Parts: sequence; structure tokens; C-alpha cells
Amino acid sequence: MTLTIANLSKVYSRKQVLSNVTLELKAETIYGLLGRNGAGKSTLLNIINNRSIATAGAVELDSMRVYENETCLNRLYLMSEDTLFPSQMKIKQMFKQTAAFYDGFDENFAKKMLTAFGLDANSSLRKLSTGYRSIAKLIVALAVDCDYIFLDEPVLGLDAHHRELFYQFLLETYQQKPRTFVISTHLIDEITYLIEEVIIMNEGEVIQAASTEEILQTGVAITGPSELVEAFVVLVKVLDKETFGGTMTAYVTDADKLGAELPEQLRLTPLNLQTYFIKLTKEGGQTDEI
Amino acid sequence: MTLTIANLSKVYSRKQVLSNVTLELKAETIYGLLGRNGAGKSTLLNIINNRSIATAGAVELDSMRVYENETCLNRLYLMSEDTLFPSQMKIKQMFKQTAAFYDGFDENFAKKMLTAFGLDANSSLRKLSTGYRSIAKLIVALAVDCDYIFLDEPVLGLDAHHRELFYQFLLETYQQKPRTFVISTHLIDEITYLIEEVIIMNEGEVIQAASTEEILQTGVAITGPSELVEAFVVLVKVLDKETFGGTMTAYVTDADKLGAELPEQLRLTPLNLQTYFIKLTKEGGQTDEI
Repeated sequence: MTLTIANLSKVYSRKQVLSNVTLELKAETIYGLLGRNGAGKSTLLNIINNRSIATAGAVELDSMRVYENETCLNRLYLMSEDTLFPSQMKIKQMFKQTAAFYDGFDENFAKKMLTAFGLDANSSLRKLSTGYRSIAKLIVALAVDCDYIFLDEPVLGLDAHHRELFYQFLLETYQQKPRTFVISTHLIDEITYLIEEVIIMNEGEVIQAASTEEILQTGVAITGPSELVEAFVVLVKVLDKETFGGTMTAYVTDADKLGAELPEQLRLTPLNLQTYFIKLTKEGGQTDEI
Repeated sequence: MTLTIANLSKVYSRKQVLSNVTLELKAETIYGLLGRNGAGKSTLLNIINNRSIATAGAVELDSMRVYENETCLNRLYLMSEDTLFPSQMKIKQMFKQTAAFYDGFDENFAKKMLTAFGLDANSSLRKLSTGYRSIAKLIVALAVDCDYIFLDEPVLGLDAHHRELFYQFLLETYQQKPRTFVISTHLIDEITYLIEEVIIMNEGEVIQAASTEEILQTGVAITGPSELVEAFVVLVKVLDKETFGGTMTAYVTDADKLGAELPEQLRLTPLNLQTYFIKLTKEGGQTDEI
């Protein structure tokens, strides 16, 4: 099973919001969808899930066009900031409604999450705080048995305890019933250990799609005397350079191409995903070389 | 100038959301308002700003009741998740409307922020992404010249670059025109260096109000052989204990009362604010002793 996104573009109020996005989303994989504010993440997720219409391009599930195709759409689920449930609806009614639309809704798992988060099934959405409203939507999203589940900023407004609890439940349901999750978030450090694949968007384009492992292996910082650092990184892609006195740190994206052995005076530090992403999408940076 | 919150309580759909909250907010101070989801932070901020009515208690600004008092209310500003501006409104119209209500709206500062965040003054709110909608509201809040500015989850949906930029602008306007900011957030690590005072809420109550410095000095972790740790912390308040084999880490909130010199086999590590908060508000923890 594969979800194929081919040459997707979107123009909205004369602005190019998505440009030629091409991606393959494999079955049973956890993806991180990273991008700065306004990069086009939500637009992409909305188009995949038929909530917005592309200007060009197509989304296909096993070679079937997803657009207005009920069978395909029933295999996809999007949790986003827009609450599609009426505000006076109670949580138990959200469960019922979702179970009616999506086969295999796991009510036991949903109830287990309710208890863990301390939520009452009889609460109506409008009486919940911002954080708890997110939690209610998260519970529904994780209890759904679709092949592809898209979570657009799932931890918005959640405190640190609750974020941790959500990551645990995500892994639990993934292990029990492997399916694909695509998580869009700005709290990158927290999800690094969860995601197997990373998709990085910038200004409406996908600028990198690779496994988390690969990115963590090829993204490094090299620190040492400026001249030595400059000479050592001359053949690789440098995302950013910082100098302090005579010392320079160069942020490199393809450490595998460094070739030569590291001179003794230089220090190589692996980048975590958050730092890698920040350097890659820095405004006025050298991202266009990527 | 002081904002006094006296014995504030709020019951909402038969639930005690706030219990007897008493606080003094000094002039020209940056506060962090910390609390888990559902702790009552937003309810407190809404009552202070006359957007919700208390069941009991009062809010006074220099001994004048704030409730429905136009003069007082003009000295307070709340940025919250609820957008009070109509969605078709353009950003420049938000500026105009706010300037009409609040004297001293700093349009130059607002324009400087617009440029830094890459926002167009002609964009209407509904065409902005979640993150950019927050940014538009933040710009208005920081350009307002009120004595007390309350920011309820100001960085919701902002990417790491934009969060950093916001913290910089907050410090800039605070240095130019010192006034009080109360920031409610779940990203505690990021604001620790900004805030002078910390208010911690739990289940509708204020469980601690102290300077950041004091909290950072008295919150420590003590690690070593379990028996030694147990004996050493017997007279102080322990928030949480973790054991691993024969080794224990005890999280202590009043390190100043430890008294005796640290035995050689024990190690003392200061807690950062995020860890301190997490231990203090852990479910089923010993927070009721505080």
C-alpha cells in the first residue's frame, strides 16, 4: 500500500502555497512533517484529505485517485486545528459519530486514553479548556483504524505530562495495529525518537525527505580554527556558519561526503533533528543550495 | 501600582475551577504563569480582564475594583486564544481598531515586528495559517502600552525561529517601556530566562508564587545510595523519588533547609524550572504537602 502525492500545487489568493510537491507515503510508517510557519504543511494535509482542492497534481492511494473517492477517503483520517464536531457535542457522542463513519474504531482504547488523561466522557467540547479540547480530538484520532492518520499539530496547548502521555499512546496503538501516522509539529526534539521518516517543507516545497537515521548521520557541526574549518568543508553543503573570535562552527548537511579524516584541531558534533531543521530553514540562509 | 487578586473563586458547571486565588502582581515585572492543562490559568486571566465573572472574590488595581470599571480595564490587555477580531479584518485594521481603544499604541513597533515576521499588513486574518494568526495577535499585544499585559499561550503554533523572535521583541519593548507581562505557557524552558517571577497553579489553586531565582536555588535533585538519600532528605519536602537499583534520586523543593553538609557519596544537581514544575505538579504526587 502506498499513498502517492504527485506534482501537487496550490495557488491561494494569488500566492503559491504549494509548488510541485511529490511524495510517497509508505504503509505502517511514522512520519514527521516539519516546516516553518506558513511552509504549506496544513495545506498539504488538507488537500490529501479532500478538505481543500489542489490547483494541479493528484493524490493516489494504490493508484486510485483519492479526490472525492469515498472508498479511499475512508482509509484516511485528519486531525487538524479545525474542530469538525459541533461545540455542544459530548465526548461520548464524538466517539459514536466517528465509529459510525470509520470501521474498526477502537472504543476500548479510546476509553483507556480518557481515563489516563482524566477526561469525562460526558463533558461537552465547549466546556473544555484549549488543551483538553486537543486531547479529546487526539483520542478520537488514535482510536481510528485508518491506514493513514494525519495529525496536524497534535500537541498544541498540551502540557509536558500530557504530551509525553500522547507519545506513549501513539506508540502503543502503532505497535498493536501498525498503520501510517504523519505528524506535523514544531516541537521537534520531542518526536525525534518516534518518527522513522522525516519530510521537511519550506516555502511550499518539499526540500528533504529521508529517514530520521540518515538525517541524524549526515547532519553535523564542525568546530575549530576558522581557516581549518573553511578548508575542511569546502566540498560539502554548509547550511550555516558561526564565528566567534578565530573559531568557527560550520553546520554541514552531508557529512558522508566529507571524505578526508578529521584534522586533530577540529571537533565534529552530530546535530539533533531540531537544530538540523533550524539551520536548514533559516531565513536568508543557504537553503536554496540543497 | 499593584494589581491585587483577592480570594477569587469560580464555579463552572458544578466544578470548582478556581479556589480562593490570592495574588499580588507588581508593576514593571515579567511573570510566568505555569500550570497543567485545566489548572485554571485561562479562567484566572479571563476574570482579571473582565471576560468572565468570578463566583467570589475581587480584582483591584491600586485599590479600585476592576470589574466593569472602564478606567481600570483600559490599563489591562489580554491576548488569548479567542480571537476577538472578525476573521475578514485585515492586519492594518486590527492595528487601527486597537489604537482607537488603547492610548499609546506603538504603530512603529508593530510595523517593525510585521517586517521581522514577514507578515503583510494587508492580509486578512482568515487567510493566515494558525501560526501566523498567533503572530498577528502577538504583535498587537506587544505594541499596546497598557500597564498589565496578559499573554495566554502566546507561542501556540509558532515555529522555533518565530518563538525566539517573539521573546526578543518582548524584551525589547519591556526595556523601552517597562510594564508588567504575565505569560502563560507550556514551553517553560524557553521562557525561564525571561521571567522574574513564577506563579504555579494546580487544580484551581496557586500552589507557589516566588521569584525565578528563589525557585532555581531551592529546587534540587539529590542522587546517591538510596539509604543515604532517604536519611539526608528526611527533614525537607520531597516532590518525587526515583530509584534505579540501589540508587535513588530525590527531587527536593526547599534545598535551603537541607542544613547538614552534603555527604561525599551524594550528588546535588540544581533543577531547571521545567523539571521543577513537572515534579511539583505530577499526578498522584506529593504536591498536597506543599
